[in-house]
Amino acid sequence: MKKNRSECPISSAMDVFGDKWSLVIIRDLFSGKTTYSEFLDSPEKISTNILSSRLRQLEAHGIISTSSKNERTGKSMYTLTDRGQQLHPVLDAIADWALENIKGTRKLISVD
Amino acid sequence: MKKNRSECPISSAMDVFGDKWSLVIIRDLFSGKTTYSEFLDSPEKISTNILSSRLRQLEAHGIISTSSKNERTGKSMYTLTDRGQQLHPVLDAIADWALENIKGTRKLISVD
Repeated sequence: MKKNRSECPISSAMDVFGDKWSLVIIRDLFSGKTTYSEFLDSPEKISTNILSSRLRQLEAHGIISTSSKNERTGKSMYTLTDRGQQLHPVLDAIADWALENIKGTRKLISVD
Repeated sequence: MKKNRSECPISSAMDVFGDKWSLVIIRDLFSGKTTYSEFLDSPEKISTNILSSRLRQLEAHGIISTSSKNERTGKSMYTLTDRGQQLHPVLDAIADWALENIKGTRKLISVD
């Protein structure tokens, strides 16, 4: 992930969240999902190994933070950090482009 | 690439350009680069097999168009289609986030 680091903001950002699954998880967090099982339930059907790996990466990059397990539910909670929250305009721009340019897409959730 | 298609614009867009190398090539096109050898020269040092594969994908998705080889230079020219040009706000949003959130990044090129 850290190979070929350049000073370019685009390239550097893509080293942090530049794959489909990272952005799908970030989308889920903006839509209010917080637990591992909620992410697994999303229609894209992320696999458990990819989900675990991406959550670790996103935490390492300071995009999400992980709570210790909830005593009642036994589940960890994942939330966007400030740095993660600042990705909202990126998701907005991507969604706007897709709604305009990819047939069959529709606004499913509000991430506001 | 086409597996698990959902109606979600984020997920669908990431199937089209959701990897570091696709966006690095799109950045290069916005900065005025048009040839295979110019893309290879970028500081991220994309490999020839990834570059060829991404150019094919971007053309298949209607993001770029490829000219026949220039008679004088013997080189094909790659340019952004209208659909590709519309990715400008996406690159802007990603760059803004990175310049704010990733140390060591700086605005290298104007893509305006």
